[in-house]
Amino acid sequence: MTSKRVGRQTIALAHPPSVVSFANIGSKFEGEGPLGAYFDEVCEDSFFGEKTWEKAESAMQKKVLRRALERASLRPEELDYIFAGDLLNQCIGSSFGLREFGIPFYGLYGACSTMGESLSLAALLIDGGFARLAAAMTSSHFCTAERQYRMPVPYGSQRTPTAQWTATAAGCTVLAEEGPGPYVTHVTCGRIVDKGITDANNMGAAMAPAAYDTLSVFFRDTGTGPRDFDLILTGDLGELGHGIVRDFFARDGVDLGETFQDCGLLLYDREGQDMHAGASGCGCSASVLNGYLLPGMRQGKWQRILFAPTGALLSPTSSFQGESVPGICHAVCLSRERDCTPQEHK
Amino acid sequence: MTSKRVGRQTIALAHPPSVVSFANIGSKFEGEGPLGAYFDEVCEDSFFGEKTWEKAESAMQKKVLRRALERASLRPEELDYIFAGDLLNQCIGSSFGLREFGIPFYGLYGACSTMGESLSLAALLIDGGFARLAAAMTSSHFCTAERQYRMPVPYGSQRTPTAQWTATAAGCTVLAEEGPGPYVTHVTCGRIVDKGITDANNMGAAMAPAAYDTLSVFFRDTGTGPRDFDLILTGDLGELGHGIVRDFFARDGVDLGETFQDCGLLLYDREGQDMHAGASGCGCSASVLNGYLLPGMRQGKWQRILFAPTGALLSPTSSFQGESVPGICHAVCLSRERDCTPQEHK
Repeated sequence: MTSKRVGRQTIALAHPPSVVSFANIGSKFEGEGPLGAYFDEVCEDSFFGEKTWEKAESAMQKKVLRRALERASLRPEELDYIFAGDLLNQCIGSSFGLREFGIPFYGLYGACSTMGESLSLAALLIDGGFARLAAAMTSSHFCTAERQYRMPVPYGSQRTPTAQWTATAAGCTVLAEEGPGPYVTHVTCGRIVDKGITDANNMGAAMAPAAYDTLSVFFRDTGTGPRDFDLILTGDLGELGHGIVRDFFARDGVDLGETFQDCGLLLYDREGQDMHAGASGCGCSASVLNGYLLPGMRQGKWQRILFAPTGALLSPTSSFQGESVPGICHAVCLSRERDCTPQEHK
Repeated sequence: MTSKRVGRQTIALAHPPSVVSFANIGSKFEGEGPLGAYFDEVCEDSFFGEKTWEKAESAMQKKVLRRALERASLRPEELDYIFAGDLLNQCIGSSFGLREFGIPFYGLYGACSTMGESLSLAALLIDGGFARLAAAMTSSHFCTAERQYRMPVPYGSQRTPTAQWTATAAGCTVLAEEGPGPYVTHVTCGRIVDKGITDANNMGAAMAPAAYDTLSVFFRDTGTGPRDFDLILTGDLGELGHGIVRDFFARDGVDLGETFQDCGLLLYDREGQDMHAGASGCGCSASVLNGYLLPGMRQGKWQRILFAPTGALLSPTSSFQGESVPGICHAVCLSRERDCTPQEHK
């Protein structure tokens, strides 16, 4: 067992599982953003043909799983597991979106870290010999998130400058024992970190300490540093949270450099699209990973990516009760080459 | 890999992880019920010394983890993972209850199947060589569940005869590579099953098809039948759901017999305590497992238990939008002897 565990929190996978398929979907604003060309499907209708936004979010999960399966010529019954979750109360985006497939299902709640959590668990179960094929997926929807966490969209509430825009998007990755890559070489399970921030309109700042914690642990556990990766990506810290993580590392004498980016800063044109601090939501990092990063790795654009989405583990109720915002960050290391562990590059 | 996977959905663990500690906690009604003597702690105050019921639910999780760690003389930093979730929106019972421990955390949403889901994933990660020690836990609270799913408690709404009573309780199991048992020998990951039932006040009936599906799969995958187990326990189907599962099996010519029980029917004196169809909530099966079943197995009362809690994957929003209630059931086989697989008993 000790051969697999590296340091306190990181697993170096003995036989890194391969990405065998992926798909993403977005809506109007995602299609109009700088990554618009990297979406498999852009649906201008925020209802995705359904009667409610919650049903629309389920429809996104259904579509994105179906597309990922089709792309690899897989039937649903070939998948051993789905790991999925979303931001909706009781994760109904996932349960209603995936109920018709009949695939063994482990439901997750990791808030906006769900793409990292689902990918981690899918990779672990495959590497452990418990599955041949497993899907990892999640979604978010601007309108379902607004009315659940903030105000119903038709109220037209003014947003604070630190606010982020919940992506209307979903993404799905299918992993297998064997395949053309990229490969999941390492996973780091995050701890809950709460530094007492209570502003639910500044979730990037609340989640930044969790990102710093998990990335620091990853570098320490694996003996690597920022320069060992072509990209280090948080999920949806936005402008403020991203800057805070950079500052934290700078205090430690570590320059994260230009390779340190955030899916929430890539998804929209913040000026042109008036998106304030950037994108957020489970669907942000999921759609960026499954439309932009994984295809880019296959094309040779990046050799090694450290993908580390963060989640804010609050609810409207906890905020009303004066609680601070706990954060979590799950990191997944993706590599084009299976046998090329970060240590070997040092 | 094929040596570990049995049939479509079941994993026979190569080196079954051992239960090394457990703890439960309940409140007034749980303490007054027939299993009252099987609680480690009964707190008469439904606030557990906190200012809100949500904070009380977090306090239960904190207390129950602390007690399980103490019982095995473990420090939090010795745990490699916690798998936890609850019924509250965004699972704040778990995130706020566990934030101070600094233990790597994978958040789950399996509704009332969470004790089965968390136990399954903890066992798989240990058997796969990714962890030495992992905790599985969950909670529920009558007052937080009522105001979130139904009506605020002070309204005093009348309950339907099919309604169940959400247990105010929590339970935690700690698993390890080695130990005195009981051992987790098999896990079966459930599929989402939705037979179109829309009555959110009859969740036992909505979840019964999922229990039937997973139990049938388990028996088929392992080549066992009801008589190979000393107890077959669903989590919180209550009187109606429990009867439906028995009827489904009877139609297949299978008599589940007296060993088929339901944690929701064990926890309260339904007549004396006026609990209608029985107990429900994640904390129901979690507290029965960790206070009554695991100690009973250690004392030799039962050799082999099939523990199969079910979850109703609905939300108030999905019900308001006319949706039916999807269910899921995750099964875990617990045995006093490590090398004694059900097949060998046939």
